Amino acid sequence: MHNFNDKLKEICLAKNNRLCIGLDVDNTKLKDDSLSYMKNYIIEIIEHTIDLCPIYKINFSFYERYGSKGFAVLEDIVKIVDKRAITIADAKRGDIGNSSKYYAKAIFEHFNFDSVTVSPYMGSDSIKPFIDYADKGIFVLGLTSNQGSLDIQKKNIEDGMPVFEHVIKMAVDMNINNNVGLVIGATNDKYLEQIKRISSNLPWLMPGVGFQGGDLKKSITLGDRNGLAIINVSRGILNAGDGDILDIRNAAIDYTEKIRENL
Amino acid sequence: MHNFNDKLKEICLAKNNRLCIGLDVDNTKLKDDSLSYMKNYIIEIIEHTIDLCPIYKINFSFYERYGSKGFAVLEDIVKIVDKRAITIADAKRGDIGNSSKYYAKAIFEHFNFDSVTVSPYMGSDSIKPFIDYADKGIFVLGLTSNQGSLDIQKKNIEDGMPVFEHVIKMAVDMNINNNVGLVIGATNDKYLEQIKRISSNLPWLMPGVGFQGGDLKKSITLGDRNGLAIINVSRGILNAGDGDILDIRNAAIDYTEKIRENL
Repeated sequence: MHNFNDKLKEICLAKNNRLCIGLDVDNTKLKDDSLSYMKNYIIEIIEHTIDLCPIYKINFSFYERYGSKGFAVLEDIVKIVDKRAITIADAKRGDIGNSSKYYAKAIFEHFNFDSVTVSPYMGSDSIKPFIDYADKGIFVLGLTSNQGSLDIQKKNIEDGMPVFEHVIKMAVDMNINNNVGLVIGATNDKYLEQIKRISSNLPWLMPGVGFQGGDLKKSITLGDRNGLAIINVSRGILNAGDGDILDIRNAAIDYTEKIRENL
Repeated sequence: MHNFNDKLKEICLAKNNRLCIGLDVDNTKLKDDSLSYMKNYIIEIIEHTIDLCPIYKINFSFYERYGSKGFAVLEDIVKIVDKRAITIADAKRGDIGNSSKYYAKAIFEHFNFDSVTVSPYMGSDSIKPFIDYADKGIFVLGLTSNQGSLDIQKKNIEDGMPVFEHVIKMAVDMNINNNVGLVIGATNDKYLEQIKRISSNLPWLMPGVGFQGGDLKKSITLGDRNGLAIINVSRGILNAGDGDILDIRNAAIDYTEKIRENL
């Protein structure tokens, strides 16, 4: 079976890009705040960027706020992408084995996403049911881009390793199917070298470039070394110009060019 | 405004119970595996236990596996409970502030749940948007009931405190609206005294009694001391006898009696 990490690399090489567009559309900024308008707008964004963009990340919160109707939009988006790009369900799941099994079933079988983000707090048995799908990808939260990463992730364990390093080590150990990746916030400039040393060849999904101010050059250079850096941009593209579809396409081209300069 | 933890205590005292029934119905065990059959079955369970039961916990994974249609059932269940008991959205959410705000909006405003479980890995800023709803409850994963709790939660930080104690301390510090609680797996017998010392008067939501083998007596005695123990039972009630509605009611009565003996 084709493993996920190889499939991810292939599409990035084919499109000569590392851009991941976060489809986090803030309805309140659109001319029409109905769900159907939002759905058509997202389809437009996909169709005007998919020639360039190898990966789309869909944060579930932007859809869950509309309840079952929002989830129906999620079902449609995956069908629209239709394997022309990799889809990431940014759902940060993680529960006891029994429940994680159903979440994996939901995201991989019902919604048919190619990959998912998971939260590591409940440990390896909460992640394993996802990893058992070898052709699907699992991005484990390693070191996130927000201020709150100080509260738990960056605390040092008695052996001198911070919590996030233990998580990364766990993720590396679990990568028997070559389908595990890491979420590494691009805002953590000074930790990136350290993370590269311990994260083997796991791909990094890197939010935090753009609106949050992460360093694009450093993220790509380090992330891509013996691995793969996936540069997620959400607001930096969606809020470009007037939010007109051509402004969005131009922003995607702009990020693509910046990425290619550093490959 | 009426704060959540007071409201929770009131309903537990009014029903003289601490039982929380986890509505995690495994469809494959029912005579008919359609979603409409499952929904009616859940309504039956609620109507045959709500005189006794102050709290229902709904694990989202059991609904998400049906996608948007499963979420439509979630919307209905909250309406059916209709404030006769407290509802917990066991969704283990947690994301950067922007996204957590939308999750809170989804769970508290759209679905209208009374409370939610959240995962602490991303830190305080990922939890705050939930806590800002003072009349809603937030159960932070503290020490979970599964084997994987060894991987991260039980690791010792340099100051000698394990990770889960840091999380509990963070949760206690965030309890300015008296609406924060903790998820404490009942399987962690030997840690309960230690947790009670540091968890102030935060209520404990305790899974792990029943199928997972946690100690009911110890859980109630300790959890209820200067606080509130909420004893969650899912499979221990749902799988009683033949899954007949009267078997389920009898199991709920049985757990209620065991709980009352220890109050």
